[in-house]
Amino acid sequence: MTLEGKLLIGQQAVEGSRVAIRAINPATNESLEPGYPGGTQADVERACELAWAAFDDYRHTSLEARAAFLEAVADEIESIGDDLIERAMVETGLPQARLLGERGRTCGQLRLFARTVRAGEWLDVRVDPALPDRQPLPRADLRQRHVALGPVAVFGASNFPLAFSVAGGDTASALAAGCPVIVKAHSAHPGTSELVGRALQAAVKKCGLPEGVFSLLFGSGREVGQALVKDSRIKAAGFTGSRSGGLALWQIAQSRPEPIPFYAEMSSINPVFLLPAALEARGQALGEAFVGSLNMGAGQFCTNPGLVIAVKGAALDAFMAAAAEAVEASAAQTMLTPGIFEAYEDGVVTLAGNDRVREVARGRKGEGPNQCRTGLFAASAQDFLASEALQAEVFGATSLVVECSGVAELAKVAECLEGQLTATLQMDDADLDAARALLPTLERKAGRILVNGWPTGVEVCDAMVHGGPFPATSDTRTTSVGSAAIFRFLRPVCYQDMPDALLPDVLKAHNPEGFERLVDGRREG
Amino acid sequence: MTLEGKLLIGQQAVEGSRVAIRAINPATNESLEPGYPGGTQADVERACELAWAAFDDYRHTSLEARAAFLEAVADEIESIGDDLIERAMVETGLPQARLLGERGRTCGQLRLFARTVRAGEWLDVRVDPALPDRQPLPRADLRQRHVALGPVAVFGASNFPLAFSVAGGDTASALAAGCPVIVKAHSAHPGTSELVGRALQAAVKKCGLPEGVFSLLFGSGREVGQALVKDSRIKAAGFTGSRSGGLALWQIAQSRPEPIPFYAEMSSINPVFLLPAALEARGQALGEAFVGSLNMGAGQFCTNPGLVIAVKGAALDAFMAAAAEAVEASAAQTMLTPGIFEAYEDGVVTLAGNDRVREVARGRKGEGPNQCRTGLFAASAQDFLASEALQAEVFGATSLVVECSGVAELAKVAECLEGQLTATLQMDDADLDAARALLPTLERKAGRILVNGWPTGVEVCDAMVHGGPFPATSDTRTTSVGSAAIFRFLRPVCYQDMPDALLPDVLKAHNPEGFERLVDGRREG
Repeated sequence: MTLEGKLLIGQQAVEGSRVAIRAINPATNESLEPGYPGGTQADVERACELAWAAFDDYRHTSLEARAAFLEAVADEIESIGDDLIERAMVETGLPQARLLGERGRTCGQLRLFARTVRAGEWLDVRVDPALPDRQPLPRADLRQRHVALGPVAVFGASNFPLAFSVAGGDTASALAAGCPVIVKAHSAHPGTSELVGRALQAAVKKCGLPEGVFSLLFGSGREVGQALVKDSRIKAAGFTGSRSGGLALWQIAQSRPEPIPFYAEMSSINPVFLLPAALEARGQALGEAFVGSLNMGAGQFCTNPGLVIAVKGAALDAFMAAAAEAVEASAAQTMLTPGIFEAYEDGVVTLAGNDRVREVARGRKGEGPNQCRTGLFAASAQDFLASEALQAEVFGATSLVVECSGVAELAKVAECLEGQLTATLQMDDADLDAARALLPTLERKAGRILVNGWPTGVEVCDAMVHGGPFPATSDTRTTSVGSAAIFRFLRPVCYQDMPDALLPDVLKAHNPEGFERLVDGRREG
Repeated sequence: MTLEGKLLIGQQAVEGSRVAIRAINPATNESLEPGYPGGTQADVERACELAWAAFDDYRHTSLEARAAFLEAVADEIESIGDDLIERAMVETGLPQARLLGERGRTCGQLRLFARTVRAGEWLDVRVDPALPDRQPLPRADLRQRHVALGPVAVFGASNFPLAFSVAGGDTASALAAGCPVIVKAHSAHPGTSELVGRALQAAVKKCGLPEGVFSLLFGSGREVGQALVKDSRIKAAGFTGSRSGGLALWQIAQSRPEPIPFYAEMSSINPVFLLPAALEARGQALGEAFVGSLNMGAGQFCTNPGLVIAVKGAALDAFMAAAAEAVEASAAQTMLTPGIFEAYEDGVVTLAGNDRVREVARGRKGEGPNQCRTGLFAASAQDFLASEALQAEVFGATSLVVECSGVAELAKVAECLEGQLTATLQMDDADLDAARALLPTLERKAGRILVNGWPTGVEVCDAMVHGGPFPATSDTRTTSVGSAAIFRFLRPVCYQDMPDALLPDVLKAHNPEGFERLVDGRREG
C-alpha cells in the first residue's frame, strides 16, 4: 500500500501546507518517506465542521449499526496485512511479535466495544413511571438514558502505535459512545497512522456513515493540537503521553469558554511492594521476574514498574543480587524515538547523579542509535521520603529500589506516593496482615492493585481500570482501557412525560430492544 | 432549641474568631440573633484533618451501617420539629408550606440514598475471572468496584435552605458514597444551618462514626470557602449558586497541584417552547399555568422558566394576554436576601432598558422590603439571536418571550441557546413532527426535557437529571438530584489476582452480600 502523506479529512485526502513531518527509524536514525506536511487551523476547522455535521446523525445510528461499524474498522485494519506491521516496525523500533500482539489487541478492543454497544448497559436506562395519585403531589413519568457528549479529539500515543493511537482505545470508546472522532496523529509514526486512518475512512464509507465521523490530522501540537482542543465543537478529548504535554492541553481545555472533559493519561511509576514473607521465600525469583517486566517494550509502558519498595535485609539482598544480574544481562533495546531516548538518558543521569541514590546495576550498552541500557538504582526510604525528585518518572527501563527499615516505613513510603495507575503486592500467606494494612492506602493511590503479578500487561475487559488519581490521570473517575472507558464520552438526559412516539426506542414503554432497565428501583428486562 | 452561633467541627462546637455573620429577615430587614463569628483557615485545617482521619474508617463502614446513618440524619432533622421550620421562615422569607415540603424532600432524599447505598448498584461490580489456559496469553482474575473519592466540600445554596444546604442533596450523595463532608454554610441562613448541622452531629455520634465524618463551617467565602477548596485533603466539591461564584471556586479547584472534580450547578434560563398546535388549542390556559410556574418560590428556582419561545400570531397573542393578566394579578413576594432582591431589580432594569425588549406586564408592587414584582418581557427572535445579553439569567420571577417568525426560526433560537438544566415542550399531537425535529437540539442543550409540564418541581428519584451542559453546570456528565448523584463521588478500582481473604466483600468469589455483578459480560446475582 502506497503512503500518500496526506491529512484525512472526512472522505478526502488533503495535502498539508506546513513543514513536513517525517518519521525516523529509531534503529538507524534514517528519516522515512513520505513526508507529512502539517495541517493548519483551517484544516482543523474543516474537520470540526464535518464532525459537527455528522454528530446528530451518528449518535442516532442504531446500536447494531454502530457495533457493525466498529467491527468493520477491525476488519479493515486486519486487511492491511503485513504492510501495517512492517511500517510500524520501522517507525517505532518495536519488534514484530509485539506489534502483531498489539494489532490483535487493537482489533479485539474494537470488537469488545462492538459487544459493549450492543449490550447497552452503558445506556444506564432508568424508568420511574408516573404516580398520578401520589400524595401530596403526583409524580411525573421520568426516563433517563445516556447520550454522546459530542465530537471527541484523540491524541495518538507514541508507545502504542496501534492500541492507543488512530484506532486505539480512546477512538474506539468514543465511537462506541456515539461521538465522531478527530485524531491528531503522533508525529513519531505517521505512516502507521495513515494506514489505520485509511482503514477507518474505508469503514465509514462501507457502513454508509456521514464522512465527518472520522478525520485524521498531522501537524504540530502547538498549531493543530491546540486548535483542536480549543474548537467549540469538540466536547471531550483523550490523550496519552507525558505529564507536561497532558497538563498543557488539559489547561487549554479548562480555559475554553465552555470547559470540556480532557482525559489525560500521563505519568505513573507503578510501585511494587515486596512483602517480607514473599521476599524471604523467593527473593531471587522475584528479582528475575521483576527485570522481565521492567524490560518489556524497552520499559516504555505506562505501567512499567519504576519503583520497588521492600524492607532491608538478607532477603532483599538476594532480590537485588538476582535483579542486578538480570539487569547486567539485559540487552540494550531501541527506544521509540530519538527524543524519548534522549529524555531517558537525561532522566537516568539525573537519577544517578542524585547523591541520595546509588547505582545497583546497568544493562549492556547498545551498538546502534537510540538504544537504552536498563538501569537499577537504590535509595533509602528516608532519602526517598525527603526528596520529591525521586518520584519523577523516568520513561524507560529504569527502576528505583526503596529500602525501608521496617514494615512501618514501607507504609510511610506508600502514603507519600503520588497517584498511580497501578500498585503491586508481592506476598505470601504470611504477609496477609501486612497486605491488609497497606490496602486502604493503595486503594487511595492507584486505579489497579495487583497481587503476585507484574503491572505491565493491561487486559482489555469489563473489569479493567487503567486510570488512577492525579497525576497518573487527569480524571480518576474513569478508565481509558476496558469497556467502562465508554462512560467518559456520555452524559445523562432525562425525559419527563414524553409521549412514546417521541421517546428514543430504549425508553419506550414496551422496551422494544429488550435492554435491562432500572424500573422503580428494580432491575428489569 | 437555643442557637449557639458556633462552628461545628467534628463533635465540637467552636467559637469563630472573624466578624460575625448575622441572618437578616428579608421580610423586615431586621438582623437575627445569634451572630455567627466566622471561621479561619485554622478552622478549615482542623475540619480537614478530622475528615481525612475519618475517611478510611468511614468508607469501610458496611453498607447497612452507612444507610442507617443516613436514616438517622433524617430522623434527627425531623425531631427538631417546628423550630427548624420557624427559623428557616424568618431567615429566608419562604412560606411555611414550602419549607414543610422542603423538609420532607430533604429527609426523603436522605432515605432514598439509604436505599441506594443498600442496593449497591453504584458499586458497579465487574468480574472477569481468570482464564489460565487462554492462548496466546492467560487472563488474570480481574475484579472492579467503586470506592469513595475522599472528603467532600459542600457549599450550601441560598434558595434551598434544607434540600440543597447542610444535609441536602450534595451532602447526602457524598455521605452515601463513603465521603466525609465539610459544609460551608450559606451566610443567609446560619440558624437553619446550625440546627441541621447539630442533627448531623448527633447522628454521627449515635451511629458511632468517627467525628470527622461531618463538620459545618461559617464564614466568608473568600477565607473559609477558598481555603476549603484549596485543601489537599478535599477530593471533590459540590456547589449550587451563581455563575460567577461557581466559576471562581471551580477555577481554584482546577488550579490546585492536584485538581479535583468541582460540581457547580450555576445558571439556567430553562426555555419553554410553545409549539403551534398546542398554542392554538390552549394558549390562554398555557399562559396562566406558565405564570404559576414562574411565580413559584418568587422565581428563585434553578429551573424557573425564564424564556418562552413561540411563533408570532393570534395564538401567541392569546397566550400573552392571559399571561399578562396573571402577571398583573401576581402578588409581590419576599425574596431570600436583600442581595438577591437587589440583583433581581438590577437584572429587571437591565432587561427593561434593552431597546430590543418590550415590557409586557409587571406584577403588583410590594409593600415590605425585598419584595419582587413578577415581570414579563418580550423580544423578537431576530433581536434575541443578535444579543447574547438576552440569555443572561435574571434570578427571580421574570421571563422573556421570544417571538419567532416561524418554526424554522424557533429551531434557530433553540440552537443558539447555552447549556440548560431543562427544556420544555408544550405540544399537541399535531406538533409531533415539529417536536421530533427539535429534539436532537434539545438533547444537546439540556439535562432534562419535559413535555406539557413546567420545569419547576424536581423529583428526587432514580431517573432524574438535574444537570446539563455548561454553563448550567460545570460537569454535564452528572446530576446533582436523584440517586445517580452518588456517582459524582466515586472512582473505580480494579483488583488483579487478589486472594479472596484480601478482597472487599462485594468482590469475594461467593458474593456474600448477593449484589448483582457483571460477570464475564453477563449480569449475575
